[in-house]
Amino acid sequence: MDQRLDFITLATPDLDAARRFYRDGLGWVPLLDVPGEILFFQVGRGLVLGLYDAAAFVGDLVDTVGGELVPVGPAAGPTGITLSHNVGSPAEVDAVVERMRGAGGRIRKSPQQAAFGGYHAHVDDPNGVVWEVAHNPGWSVAADGSVRLQPVE
Amino acid sequence: MDQRLDFITLATPDLDAARRFYRDGLGWVPLLDVPGEILFFQVGRGLVLGLYDAAAFVGDLVDTVGGELVPVGPAAGPTGITLSHNVGSPAEVDAVVERMRGAGGRIRKSPQQAAFGGYHAHVDDPNGVVWEVAHNPGWSVAADGSVRLQPVE
Repeated sequence: MDQRLDFITLATPDLDAARRFYRDGLGWVPLLDVPGEILFFQVGRGLVLGLYDAAAFVGDLVDTVGGELVPVGPAAGPTGITLSHNVGSPAEVDAVVERMRGAGGRIRKSPQQAAFGGYHAHVDDPNGVVWEVAHNPGWSVAADGSVRLQPVE
Repeated sequence: MDQRLDFITLATPDLDAARRFYRDGLGWVPLLDVPGEILFFQVGRGLVLGLYDAAAFVGDLVDTVGGELVPVGPAAGPTGITLSHNVGSPAEVDAVVERMRGAGGRIRKSPQQAAFGGYHAHVDDPNGVVWEVAHNPGWSVAADGSVRLQPVE
């Protein structure tokens, strides 16, 4: 099994609010937009973030041909996860956080020194999806896409 | 703000179980492994999946310098999200699902025809993280990393 993630799907109670935030507020270009159902954005090389109507999300996890019965939670938004957007400087962290706030985001953790040695903030999107905006001086990506992580002094 | 996701962090109640599943069971190579704290895997070009001790995950969301007070949920695992791994054929879906089951995964939705026109299954990792294993004939990635989505007949 290749060590690869291709697609991330988030249960989204309010797709219209998500559209206003990502498309109208942040200026992101949808890969696919089916109102009331799904909203896809490409967020990396071969990587898509899919916002999926929360009720449909739960419905899609139901096994229709057998398998183990696994309880499915309520149609709420994602918890227990953060999505991170890395930038090149603390000033860029501040700027992106302001952009997200202007687009309707809610600042959960204001920009500050991070435990990993860099500088970061956390902003909730209108559906409660937590984005970390981070400057990590130890993070770099080589030409072949390899991530390098070095301890920050 | 660039349309880019660099890092995904999951609250992980049992990091040792996660290590047994991803490293020992699936053969994935950690980018960084700090027992009791974090376990990182590169899962794409410039993309890292970080499994983070659930209590530390919650602690990291606390604002120490001000900002709005946003409630943080209990230190449970992620909900409202699926991570997808795409493969080239239905037979590969079956094979990856078996590999995941052998590694300690729990089949939530057995391999079957998917609403999007392809073939897929859902498997929970030992911490309840839901992976979709999918064959989507309409999914392709161009040389520049652009994702193409075409309707499946």
